[in-house]
Amino acid sequence: MPVSGDLAANDRRIEALLLHRELEEFNTGYAAALDEQRLTDWAEMFTDDAFYVVISRENADAGMPVGLIYCENKGMILDRALAMKTEMFAPRYLRHIIGNTQVLGEEPNGDIRARANYVVIQVLFDRPEAKLHQVGVYYDRFRRVGDHLELAERRCVYDNLLVDNALCLPV
Amino acid sequence: MPVSGDLAANDRRIEALLLHRELEEFNTGYAAALDEQRLTDWAEMFTDDAFYVVISRENADAGMPVGLIYCENKGMILDRALAMKTEMFAPRYLRHIIGNTQVLGEEPNGDIRARANYVVIQVLFDRPEAKLHQVGVYYDRFRRVGDHLELAERRCVYDNLLVDNALCLPV
Amino acid sequence: MPVSGDLAANDRRIEALLLHRELEEFNTGYAAALDEQRLTDWAEMFTDDAFYVVISRENADAGMPVGLIYCENKGMILDRALAMKTEMFAPRYLRHIIGNTQVLGEEPNGDIRARANYVVIQVLFDRPEAKLHQVGVYYDRFRRVGDHLELAERRCVYDNLLVDNALCLPV
Repeated sequence: MPVSGDLAANDRRIEALLLHRELEEFNTGYAAALDEQRLTDWAEMFTDDAFYVVISRENADAGMPVGLIYCENKGMILDRALAMKTEMFAPRYLRHIIGNTQVLGEEPNGDIRARANYVVIQVLFDRPEAKLHQVGVYYDRFRRVGDHLELAERRCVYDNLLVDNALCLPV
Repeated sequence: MPVSGDLAANDRRIEALLLHRELEEFNTGYAAALDEQRLTDWAEMFTDDAFYVVISRENADAGMPVGLIYCENKGMILDRALAMKTEMFAPRYLRHIIGNTQVLGEEPNGDIRARANYVVIQVLFDRPEAKLHQVGVYYDRFRRVGDHLELAERRCVYDNLLVDNALCLPV
Repeated sequence: MPVSGDLAANDRRIEALLLHRELEEFNTGYAAALDEQRLTDWAEMFTDDAFYVVISRENADAGMPVGLIYCENKGMILDRALAMKTEMFAPRYLRHIIGNTQVLGEEPNGDIRARANYVVIQVLFDRPEAKLHQVGVYYDRFRRVGDHLELAERRCVYDNLLVDNALCLPV
């Protein structure tokens, strides 16, 4: 049985459990911020030097850097969030399902590498049905800042070749 | 690291972990009851005074109370469950994916406020493909009854504007 | 509160938590192996005597054994994995979302019975949008082999009546 045996191994397992839960909780808050279109709250989940990109699996696999959204620091992320208020696009609801969150390891500087699968479901106000808007993987680096986590990097690598009705909002 | 430091803080984290897991487990059982159309089992997951409503995000955001399903107590919920046996509707499979479960806090009476995202995928027997039937959020109040949890309130707020092929079964 | 009371009960809860997490982690690795088309890695997640079948809910409910894929041991599973390299089919991306993982109990021989809901989303390279490819439940038996888990049985029971564009890859 996994829990018998030495106590230290068990402590490490519980520690891993707590860290995983913390990342899940982060992702749940991240999803809620975007789904409720609280974009400033969303931007505040990143570190000042954060890298945020939304890129197709095709480009990512080929090592091509170009993405639909490309932000090299928090200023650009905030800019992206604020631009939403002035841009015109068809009103819509988004709903993020983030699952299979996984801790991959730790960087030399203490950042936590992780990944998670995501599905974004979109409802356009002038169409009746919900549609799969974007499906993919987040490749992340989390950083502990005080008592909470922030994203130092989130690369959103999406599978679908065409993003239905444009990508107006971050994923 | 999160787990070092004082023992009491760590205990609280483990306690939070256990509570979260308990809610997830509840939601998994809830999904299974509905997916296997065990509607009486489903109804038994609510308290006697439970409030259960399925309402559009549009109405919920506007503070409008009207929903597709509206039950003010367990009697109405059971009634809903039993009515299914006499109603006529096209046979179908449903599959619930409930994710991003989150504990939000505790009410003065000890009820646990929580939320979770849900996706219901439907297959109609006379159509080949699976479709997104309903996408939304559960806003919940859980109550501890003996050694298990029951729902004192579940508000299912769905994003999609039209519910494909009618809402015959609870979500 | 759940965590107060006797220590032994609490230990059991933490043990259950760790086991559940271990299964989730397994399923996340399983999803990643398939999504990245590392089919040999996928096959290595099974025991030598593993039973792997992909079967419709209709057939499963009726007690009919025939499925789209039917493997009675790891040799057949590996064969399936390797055959992919020679078969011709339209190129595609798959993305697995595995959720609501649940430990159901323990077999006399120590195997762990479990289940999980799954959604496979497919993108064909010559079509723009992501589609629900398959939706269903995994019914599993996990076996502890050394310090890790392997699948002694995975029955993939899918809801959708027609599998879009053939089932080329395992689920």
